[in-house]
Amino acid sequence: MTVTAPELIDSALEGLRTALEYIGTVAFAISGAVAAGRKRMDVLGAVVLACMVAVGGGTLRDVLLDVPVFWMESPSFLLVGAGTGLAVALVARWHPLDRLDRYRILQISDAAGLAVFVVVGTGIAVDAGASLVTAAVMGVITGVGGGVIRDLLANDVPDVLRNGHLYATAALAGATLYAVLIAADVDRLVVIWLPIAVVLGIRLASLTFGWGVPTIGGKPVDLAWHDEERRG
Amino acid sequence: MTVTAPELIDSALEGLRTALEYIGTVAFAISGAVAAGRKRMDVLGAVVLACMVAVGGGTLRDVLLDVPVFWMESPSFLLVGAGTGLAVALVARWHPLDRLDRYRILQISDAAGLAVFVVVGTGIAVDAGASLVTAAVMGVITGVGGGVIRDLLANDVPDVLRNGHLYATAALAGATLYAVLIAADVDRLVVIWLPIAVVLGIRLASLTFGWGVPTIGGKPVDLAWHDEERRG
Amino acid sequence: MTVTAPELIDSALEGLRTALEYIGTVAFAISGAVAAGRKRMDVLGAVVLACMVAVGGGTLRDVLLDVPVFWMESPSFLLVGAGTGLAVALVARWHPLDRLDRYRILQISDAAGLAVFVVVGTGIAVDAGASLVTAAVMGVITGVGGGVIRDLLANDVPDVLRNGHLYATAALAGATLYAVLIAADVDRLVVIWLPIAVVLGIRLASLTFGWGVPTIGGKPVDLAWHDEERRG
Repeated sequence: MTVTAPELIDSALEGLRTALEYIGTVAFAISGAVAAGRKRMDVLGAVVLACMVAVGGGTLRDVLLDVPVFWMESPSFLLVGAGTGLAVALVARWHPLDRLDRYRILQISDAAGLAVFVVVGTGIAVDAGASLVTAAVMGVITGVGGGVIRDLLANDVPDVLRNGHLYATAALAGATLYAVLIAADVDRLVVIWLPIAVVLGIRLASLTFGWGVPTIGGKPVDLAWHDEERRG
Repeated sequence: MTVTAPELIDSALEGLRTALEYIGTVAFAISGAVAAGRKRMDVLGAVVLACMVAVGGGTLRDVLLDVPVFWMESPSFLLVGAGTGLAVALVARWHPLDRLDRYRILQISDAAGLAVFVVVGTGIAVDAGASLVTAAVMGVITGVGGGVIRDLLANDVPDVLRNGHLYATAALAGATLYAVLIAADVDRLVVIWLPIAVVLGIRLASLTFGWGVPTIGGKPVDLAWHDEERRG
Repeated sequence: MTVTAPELIDSALEGLRTALEYIGTVAFAISGAVAAGRKRMDVLGAVVLACMVAVGGGTLRDVLLDVPVFWMESPSFLLVGAGTGLAVALVARWHPLDRLDRYRILQISDAAGLAVFVVVGTGIAVDAGASLVTAAVMGVITGVGGGVIRDLLANDVPDVLRNGHLYATAALAGATLYAVLIAADVDRLVVIWLPIAVVLGIRLASLTFGWGVPTIGGKPVDLAWHDEERRG
């Protein structure tokens, strides 16, 4: 059997997507375990929450697309999420983090998970035959789902809804950009990396400079690094 | 191809159901955006919450029935939900509502969405071949699902569980009535409009006159218009 | 038609599983109705919450496994959940429970529901062809799902995540033990009853003796009977 060039490329892209899924899994698991620490959950609670955050968005996506849930076919995602959560919980137990560090780690790992899962989720929905609009929505759901589950279970209003920062904006921009680039048939590596860079850039700029969308009441919201420090 | 009278009627009923779905979408999107304003969410958060409330109940219904999720086939529901949410958020930003108005608008739009979606949901489940009991349950889920998602994400105990008012009662009455009328084979227009009127009537009477189911502790609950005004 | 011995045994085991499902339904419905009482929900809210807690875990399991949701085929589970919730709400209305009794009843009924549903859920997933890892995860989801829904809707951080007690531990131990026993092909009655005893034993020992997993911050958590009494 001869392997043609396109097949090699497809297989390389497939490998890249899988690598990104693991990166997102680790990133969201970190954010879940750190959130568990903020709420004084126990170590196993942190492991369970890390897993739920890591696979939650993709699970929602697969249930909505009515395709087999990804972690049933590859339980290694659950194990990676659990292992990451356990490691973070143990480190946090012996080396307690101060409030600002915890906030930074939670937000940076969340931004990484968001960027990666928006792109992976949109791509999986396109491959499953969804229209571009639906695929972009699925990308947003994959990206924000884990964080929403984390915030719900930790009894917070989800950041995606609340914080005046560019969270929903970043997810929508990344998923829309992916759909547009796919439709424009540009190089697959650009389709993958450009939206990741855009989501990460928007989130980190928002956190660093305090950029945000106005709240409905018109009151400014202060959730940049220095604001958390000031409260801390 | 000849179009027979029954086919014309079916097509007219189909059109009526679609119109009702859009009315429910707009109504729930309004309630979601107003709830976002109460929690000082940002404008995009309001848009996202409006969408989730608008399509949440129907999404639960379709996932449970294992049929394709309705907004994947008609993304226009998402666009209508988002557009409604954006409009409400912008109006609320420039013309802030006082507490009582916000409460009234939230409750009235919620009652309209509830009435419409209970009926639409029960009907869709019947058409999907569900038994009448299951269909009535699906109607309740479609009707209350969006509001439960709204209250969960806004970090409130859902009204359907808490408030001593006739919320679950209204949904159950409407869905049961629909199932009974379908089984009795009465005119389809009656099957649709009578339960809508009953749900709306129960909700508005409860809010206007403070009618309610006793709480378990026996303490009266005051959530009628004038009670909110008194607290306001 | 001759009925062979293995068929008789299969049918007896099937009957046992169904009986366990009803026991778990009643137990979780009690915990839901008692939780509703703590939050001063109304009687119908208690009925709705009792139903959701009773069928929530199994519903999540069936949606994730992509099999028909169990209560659509047997609405009697909904009726049993609703009837139990109504009975508890009425009893609680006329004979108000004190805080400690409420806590005991909630925790004991929750432990019974957890033990039974972990085993039933793992078994159903195995029968649906899931791998043993996936089946154990499904058992945990079936067991803890109802309680998580209860705590989310009552606006609490779920016990499975928070309380430093052996909740997630008990569920994971029971589901893992079931999967190991099935793989080892031991007698089916042992496969069913041993994990139930283990889950119940861990939960009740944790509540009685205050055993727990360390919290991340290292602070001890006091949620044993006597701690609730002390606060009460």
